[in-house]
Amino acid sequence: MKLSLDKISDHNSKLKLSHQDEWDFLSNKLSKEGVDVDELIQKIKDFQIAVPSWALGAGGTRFGRFGIGGEPRNLEEKLADIGLLKDLTRKTDSVSLHIPWDIPSDYSAIKSLASELGISFDAMNSNTFQDNGGSETYKLGSLGNSKKAVRDQAVAHNIEVVEIGKKLGSKGLTVWLADGSNFPGQSSLRSALQWTQESLTEIYKAMPDDWKMLLEYKPYEPNFYHTIIPDWGTSSLLCKSLGDRAKVLVDLGHHLPNTNIEQIVATLMYQDMLAGFHFNDSKYGDDDLTTGSIKPYQLFLIFCELISGSEDGAQAWESISWMIDASHNTKDPLEDLMQALEMISISFAKALLVDRRKLTTCQIEGDVVGAQECLQEAFQRDVRPLVREARIQNGGAADPIMLYRSLAVRKNLISERGAESRSTGL
Amino acid sequence: MKLSLDKISDHNSKLKLSHQDEWDFLSNKLSKEGVDVDELIQKIKDFQIAVPSWALGAGGTRFGRFGIGGEPRNLEEKLADIGLLKDLTRKTDSVSLHIPWDIPSDYSAIKSLASELGISFDAMNSNTFQDNGGSETYKLGSLGNSKKAVRDQAVAHNIEVVEIGKKLGSKGLTVWLADGSNFPGQSSLRSALQWTQESLTEIYKAMPDDWKMLLEYKPYEPNFYHTIIPDWGTSSLLCKSLGDRAKVLVDLGHHLPNTNIEQIVATLMYQDMLAGFHFNDSKYGDDDLTTGSIKPYQLFLIFCELISGSEDGAQAWESISWMIDASHNTKDPLEDLMQALEMISISFAKALLVDRRKLTTCQIEGDVVGAQECLQEAFQRDVRPLVREARIQNGGAADPIMLYRSLAVRKNLISERGAESRSTGL
Amino acid sequence: MKLSLDKISDHNSKLKLSHQDEWDFLSNKLSKEGVDVDELIQKIKDFQIAVPSWALGAGGTRFGRFGIGGEPRNLEEKLADIGLLKDLTRKTDSVSLHIPWDIPSDYSAIKSLASELGISFDAMNSNTFQDNGGSETYKLGSLGNSKKAVRDQAVAHNIEVVEIGKKLGSKGLTVWLADGSNFPGQSSLRSALQWTQESLTEIYKAMPDDWKMLLEYKPYEPNFYHTIIPDWGTSSLLCKSLGDRAKVLVDLGHHLPNTNIEQIVATLMYQDMLAGFHFNDSKYGDDDLTTGSIKPYQLFLIFCELISGSEDGAQAWESISWMIDASHNTKDPLEDLMQALEMISISFAKALLVDRRKLTTCQIEGDVVGAQECLQEAFQRDVRPLVREARIQNGGAADPIMLYRSLAVRKNLISERGAESRSTGL
Amino acid sequence: MKLSLDKISDHNSKLKLSHQDEWDFLSNKLSKEGVDVDELIQKIKDFQIAVPSWALGAGGTRFGRFGIGGEPRNLEEKLADIGLLKDLTRKTDSVSLHIPWDIPSDYSAIKSLASELGISFDAMNSNTFQDNGGSETYKLGSLGNSKKAVRDQAVAHNIEVVEIGKKLGSKGLTVWLADGSNFPGQSSLRSALQWTQESLTEIYKAMPDDWKMLLEYKPYEPNFYHTIIPDWGTSSLLCKSLGDRAKVLVDLGHHLPNTNIEQIVATLMYQDMLAGFHFNDSKYGDDDLTTGSIKPYQLFLIFCELISGSEDGAQAWESISWMIDASHNTKDPLEDLMQALEMISISFAKALLVDRRKLTTCQIEGDVVGAQECLQEAFQRDVRPLVREARIQNGGAADPIMLYRSLAVRKNLISERGAESRSTGL
Repeated sequence: MKLSLDKISDHNSKLKLSHQDEWDFLSNKLSKEGVDVDELIQKIKDFQIAVPSWALGAGGTRFGRFGIGGEPRNLEEKLADIGLLKDLTRKTDSVSLHIPWDIPSDYSAIKSLASELGISFDAMNSNTFQDNGGSETYKLGSLGNSKKAVRDQAVAHNIEVVEIGKKLGSKGLTVWLADGSNFPGQSSLRSALQWTQESLTEIYKAMPDDWKMLLEYKPYEPNFYHTIIPDWGTSSLLCKSLGDRAKVLVDLGHHLPNTNIEQIVATLMYQDMLAGFHFNDSKYGDDDLTTGSIKPYQLFLIFCELISGSEDGAQAWESISWMIDASHNTKDPLEDLMQALEMISISFAKALLVDRRKLTTCQIEGDVVGAQECLQEAFQRDVRPLVREARIQNGGAADPIMLYRSLAVRKNLISERGAESRSTGL
Repeated sequence: MKLSLDKISDHNSKLKLSHQDEWDFLSNKLSKEGVDVDELIQKIKDFQIAVPSWALGAGGTRFGRFGIGGEPRNLEEKLADIGLLKDLTRKTDSVSLHIPWDIPSDYSAIKSLASELGISFDAMNSNTFQDNGGSETYKLGSLGNSKKAVRDQAVAHNIEVVEIGKKLGSKGLTVWLADGSNFPGQSSLRSALQWTQESLTEIYKAMPDDWKMLLEYKPYEPNFYHTIIPDWGTSSLLCKSLGDRAKVLVDLGHHLPNTNIEQIVATLMYQDMLAGFHFNDSKYGDDDLTTGSIKPYQLFLIFCELISGSEDGAQAWESISWMIDASHNTKDPLEDLMQALEMISISFAKALLVDRRKLTTCQIEGDVVGAQECLQEAFQRDVRPLVREARIQNGGAADPIMLYRSLAVRKNLISERGAESRSTGL
Repeated sequence: MKLSLDKISDHNSKLKLSHQDEWDFLSNKLSKEGVDVDELIQKIKDFQIAVPSWALGAGGTRFGRFGIGGEPRNLEEKLADIGLLKDLTRKTDSVSLHIPWDIPSDYSAIKSLASELGISFDAMNSNTFQDNGGSETYKLGSLGNSKKAVRDQAVAHNIEVVEIGKKLGSKGLTVWLADGSNFPGQSSLRSALQWTQESLTEIYKAMPDDWKMLLEYKPYEPNFYHTIIPDWGTSSLLCKSLGDRAKVLVDLGHHLPNTNIEQIVATLMYQDMLAGFHFNDSKYGDDDLTTGSIKPYQLFLIFCELISGSEDGAQAWESISWMIDASHNTKDPLEDLMQALEMISISFAKALLVDRRKLTTCQIEGDVVGAQECLQEAFQRDVRPLVREARIQNGGAADPIMLYRSLAVRKNLISERGAESRSTGL
Repeated sequence: MKLSLDKISDHNSKLKLSHQDEWDFLSNKLSKEGVDVDELIQKIKDFQIAVPSWALGAGGTRFGRFGIGGEPRNLEEKLADIGLLKDLTRKTDSVSLHIPWDIPSDYSAIKSLASELGISFDAMNSNTFQDNGGSETYKLGSLGNSKKAVRDQAVAHNIEVVEIGKKLGSKGLTVWLADGSNFPGQSSLRSALQWTQESLTEIYKAMPDDWKMLLEYKPYEPNFYHTIIPDWGTSSLLCKSLGDRAKVLVDLGHHLPNTNIEQIVATLMYQDMLAGFHFNDSKYGDDDLTTGSIKPYQLFLIFCELISGSEDGAQAWESISWMIDASHNTKDPLEDLMQALEMISISFAKALLVDRRKLTTCQIEGDVVGAQECLQEAFQRDVRPLVREARIQNGGAADPIMLYRSLAVRKNLISERGAESRSTGL
């Protein structure tokens, strides 16, 4: 389903009055405070987040799955959904593919479809947590398996993913390893780490020089005693042994309870080692909920670190990849993605409003109360008019979800694709 | 596959020498300390744990599932597997069925098969966390759903489960609710609780007078913001409103990080409110690992509370139900169950060896060091000869896993049922 | 140090222009949306939070303490500090005393000082976690100690606290028990619970009929294996055995990792069992940080439950007690309290703005996305002009911390009381 | 109080019979299994753990402290207590001093006292988490403070500690930093890390060439938002920037909930980066309970990694430092230390009994069940006779606590030093 641009301008003109009023008030206020409003708007407009191909269908849990209807049945339909998201939000212009779920049958057709929709190909994702028809099984691990034949198969698969990505114009490989063990003794912890290091070295060598490797960490699940790459320290250790183009990917849900994630971001940027993000939110574990829905202040604090780290020159903003990675068990995936993009934009905008000079003064002088006030001054602001203005200027809808619902998009998708269509994914 | 009893006696005679030596040494020592060894053995022999019908196939995670081969394809084969377990271990003599996975097609045939195998029917389990063909969907909850029609369907299903159980001679209904919400605001927390209370009341009323309801709690998963019955307090609140025959079921994996589970057991027994256990183990969440494989000392401490609570008359031992509830992702389920039964037996045996009189003296006198010594005195003992002796006296195998492997049971099951057979379950 | 009211009006007139502008814009907008702005303002004005007497000096950790200077040296100076807070914020009009730290030497003098300052006496706090000169030691517990003599002393102390409170006009007794154990075996879990129940029964009986008992729970610290009252379920169990006037006190820091606290609030209100709050915030444990500084969204969600529970008639708003309970290790305590009062007000105001009718519709209809939008619509708003307007109307300062700093209050207190003065507390 | 060696031999001869019986049975069994019993005994005899000087008095919590009586009043008495421990257990032959608490007034007298008692000086500990009279305050940090003057003072203090250690023959400096922040915004996360790195560099340079630096990490407390060195990854990052002699110190209580500590040990050994241990145990946070009292299986698994890492040549056993670091709030510190030494010995002995060849086979072949059996085979054994035999052969007491109590040591210490004597420490 393709959105006609008329629909957006009709929608926007209906909301124009109330928006203009709010935006005028806010922009005047910001200008008085010395904020360069145009520059601010531009930063928000420029900030684009990739959407993974597997996020367009309903997700599930180990207890079951409830389909949403109208899910994309193939890569073409996935691109169409992202195109729709793009038109509504102007906040996403690339897709992250997952192999073997998204192997194009016709590369040039897919490339021209993507180009038509204005969508590029973000980092590629390999899959060695399921058996996809190879002769060896990943039941007990892949890149870190104790059997050389299994590791070889997993390495070959990753290299194949790189090859596919090269044809599409992707520039990165995301490696998430489910490898680990369920019971003490099951795995030799040091050997498994060493085998993983060796396997990653082979894959790294096979990557083109202008690619980067994004190495994810996760403390548990689907293995419940140990994971070979459980934390940023281990991911970092491996990346450093690989080379400059291997960096650490932070998935917000992949941490032990109470972890200070913004500090991990700061520590990675301190070393120019941050590959990028998988945005989602969680209350308990890798819950894969909509980013910002549970801990919005944490998301804001992460953006504070990102902005401060890039402005201070620790690590370049452009070197960081941004992707949503959530599971949509009870929401329409497209609506959920719009909520996620909005929460990311809001958090980013608030973080841009932090008076960093004042904050630094408080930090240097030990004014703990003042530093907290400084952050709250930005966090308590209602920046939605700012985010909306940037979206409208970019050609998006003033209220994407409202428009999506008024156009009955899901209903249309269901009549087009069926109520039982099922997208590949988890 | 049925085990001939000859195999067991052959096996046992091979291990007799080394066992006898160890058992003699231990029993002499215990006798000298004043332990009534016969009574001790009898308690261990009498202690039987139910096995759930869904534990006989490979489990999975939301990321995938790796089959084990030779999994039981129907209820008859599930009973056969439990019969085998029973013969090997003499530690399990009942099965807990899950509806709709285990609806018998021929009740009298199933009952005579069970009776032949010496297996009885433990508590029944209902399933409202998946859509099983009803007109209403449980996507947003069942007994606590905001829609009356959904609640009615879920109540009717539970009552149907009771009816099935009555025909089989079961005496209990286990209710685990996946109900909850993924996002703040999604659910009215108080209304959901009230609807759940109302639904449970209807089910409770439909239960025969000699049945008990076992009401499980769980803090999260598959819902990741809130669960309607998250903790023992809520389960207890609901049970008290239902009546004397509703009690709280403790699943070891259903707790927040760092929870003192043995204290929950003590507090429930204090009120005569403990329905029973689902045994498993976990390092992170509801990992469903083999019980005792991660935190064996915790399992021992739980048994200390169980023994002390029953000996002190807080709650009768006979009123408590025992069941294993783990997921076998990387192990042969039958071997895993044997390991679980062994760890339960070991923990129980060690807890029986605690010198409770001495411990009470330390507690009263504030001898903290002495109290710890008292528990360690029991925990550090090697009680495996004791557990083995009880099993041999009961007719089981000296080393069940060794015998199981030497008989190549799994290989036989695979040739009988196929490498791709898949048992119902998660 | 007493604040002259001129200072406040001078300060307010300086900030008048910018405030008026923001407030006009917001109130117009709210009015257009159908909000009764006067009623809203009134609710915020009426909402008052008690301050504990021990929060006026620097706190510490087990690793040490860094004094702040100018700390109140006696009860009179504590009242003076609270009077100052009251004048600046108009958000607190009562003090919660801690015995034996705050035993008045002259009751009528204290009462008239309090009355002069417009401060009343909130719930009294007993102390059985330290030895305060009694013949028995609380090293191994107080109300739940295995020794009757210790329990008797602790009961007597609590009754004495009630007596002191009666003379001052307090109407409540807060009981926080540090009782528990550090090691498995140290304590008989059921006996300790029973002794605690018996001791509380004696204290409850000694309370006047118009008093309430606020029974706190805490999972760990200062005991690190078990706490006798670890969770709301145990507190609730005890309260129900005592009588209608015993209810459960929620301290925000007293929960295991990942606990859904707003659900506990809802569940307590469902039973009319919520005594009140100790406000603070935490990232790891009972960190006693400024409320709202770490998880502001959680605080908002708690207020959503409080408002919904009282508006639905589950439990009356007036029956709930409100108190700050934080530790000020690195901040000026008075500034910290002002930040806490502001965050509470902001959270309360945002929660009042939730469109509950719309939310309920979403909940009933299963519109998960809509429900989240509903909460975000309120949470993303900048309500600081509203909170400020309420404060100004109440006679407080437009910006309390700014005024406090411009008056150099701490410097004055130091010159008055000395740089080494140390307030009683932790 | 000095223990006469006669007392030990008297005690041992009383317990000889029962011990000999158990030891004969066990050693015969081990020999039959092919274990070199003499080598095993020798390893246990050789394994010595340092005791910190601050562990000899009662510890406390932020809520208070209950003295134990007879606590050592000065360094001489601390050495005497450790001498006593040494004589009883033969498991500790060194002390770890804390400066400024333990600055010797007369170096040569202290050195000859230590030499007389057979005690050497393990790693030195600096203290920058309290103000010890310097002109700058550590309230907001020390080595990572935003103020150069504070950092300089903290660096100078550490260098002074090295100087003191040199005079005593110590060969290591343990650095634990309490530095961090309580609130978001308070600290510039990257700057604080950089300042810490610079300060540590200065200290490292001042260390003699034959010293090592043991750099501790801790996620929280006494700071509750962020800690500058929160995890092994950050500690490792800093150590690598310092040089080969800086390594990561693991304190068992310094981890987030559910952390797999044995994996951290393996990962550190993989890089030859493990400095050593602070032994204690915890259920919730940095509870500082007796090691092995809460999670004995975890302690065993850690020793499995240590043995496997050293036997495989990943890191030399001799390069690792061992120290107890617990807090004794409710136990006699000397008894607690004896319990800790016993649990360490038991865990070490069990880990030595793991059939590593069989385990490796299971790991390589993917025999998950077999691997678990392998570990349980060692863990379930009662190794107390082995530990006891090693202690007796070393000249220690068969049952140290029993002898300690029969000699009424604490009573004697109280009469010698007074009931109110208070040792320096927390």
